[in-house]
Amino acid sequence: MGMELLEERIRKDGHVRGHDVLKVDSFLNHQIDVAFLEELGKEFGRRFAGCGVTKILTIEASGIGIACMTAQIFRVPVVFAKKNKTKNIAGDVYTSPVHSFTHGKTYDIIVSKEFLKAEDKVLLIDDFLANGKALEGLCKLVDDAGATLCGAGIVIEKGFQQGGDRLREKGIRIESLARIAAMSQEEGISFF
Amino acid sequence: MGMELLEERIRKDGHVRGHDVLKVDSFLNHQIDVAFLEELGKEFGRRFAGCGVTKILTIEASGIGIACMTAQIFRVPVVFAKKNKTKNIAGDVYTSPVHSFTHGKTYDIIVSKEFLKAEDKVLLIDDFLANGKALEGLCKLVDDAGATLCGAGIVIEKGFQQGGDRLREKGIRIESLARIAAMSQEEGISFF
Repeated sequence: MGMELLEERIRKDGHVRGHDVLKVDSFLNHQIDVAFLEELGKEFGRRFAGCGVTKILTIEASGIGIACMTAQIFRVPVVFAKKNKTKNIAGDVYTSPVHSFTHGKTYDIIVSKEFLKAEDKVLLIDDFLANGKALEGLCKLVDDAGATLCGAGIVIEKGFQQGGDRLREKGIRIESLARIAAMSQEEGISFF
Repeated sequence: MGMELLEERIRKDGHVRGHDVLKVDSFLNHQIDVAFLEELGKEFGRRFAGCGVTKILTIEASGIGIACMTAQIFRVPVVFAKKNKTKNIAGDVYTSPVHSFTHGKTYDIIVSKEFLKAEDKVLLIDDFLANGKALEGLCKLVDDAGATLCGAGIVIEKGFQQGGDRLREKGIRIESLARIAAMSQEEGISFF
């Protein structure tokens, strides 16, 4: 079920470019409307209530804002996977390759073993779900840690791409607050 | 004036590597202790109260969490500068080169002109201040937009490096919640 407040906002402020790019820079992933994201966080709180979530896992950079707003509801820490190994991460890490169609390359996402434990119940949070490669990478990190996956909370799913369905078929619970059925510059955006 | 709660946390959970790397991955820039960052956000709220802040500006990725917590206090949006031009940012942008000593390279930070206006009163927020290059880059973006700079709220300043003093000499108000005077693996961490 889509969240009406969000669908309205996407219709109002989203810009479709070509046939598969949706720009929501004004409230989600360049400018962040924090008060609005608080409402999205509360909705994830309702949907995943009773799952015993102990940790929110996301990927830098644009997942961090919505992950923090959701973590406030669950009163748990956020861990954000990093996209490149830097000098500042030492020691043992879980790692997973992710192919980015946006940037046309494959990068590694990395989480320190210290912050993902077998006893964790992990809720994945991300801003977009399209081909599902980033989310798959996060699932692998959770798997490698032997942690329990509660599911994934997604702000906007491009339902016309295959990622969401492929992951649901694997038994992963995915809650998308807005699920786009089709979009184009001419016809606008329609939701499932 | 340092914030005691934060200094204690750094002493307890921070790890010094070599003579200039401080790892605070467990609460600030890999795992995020959201409840703790809420307290830091409130402190920035107290220090910059009455400045009429209309926008929080930070850099991806590790500044986003603390920026969002601070934005909740001021009830204003966050804008995070991006480190690389991606397909998803089109149109006119302000840009500034930043040299990263951590990564040993220079990159551009970018903000869409749409989200930084001459009438904005901007509070810069970042997790670390060391040589000051990132903060200088953010100041230039604010300048280029013709916006008013309220100052910069920094979680941890490496006071033994020159960035903070150099920017203060330019007349920029910098509020660092913890300001490290010296640190080493042997002697631990001391604060101004």
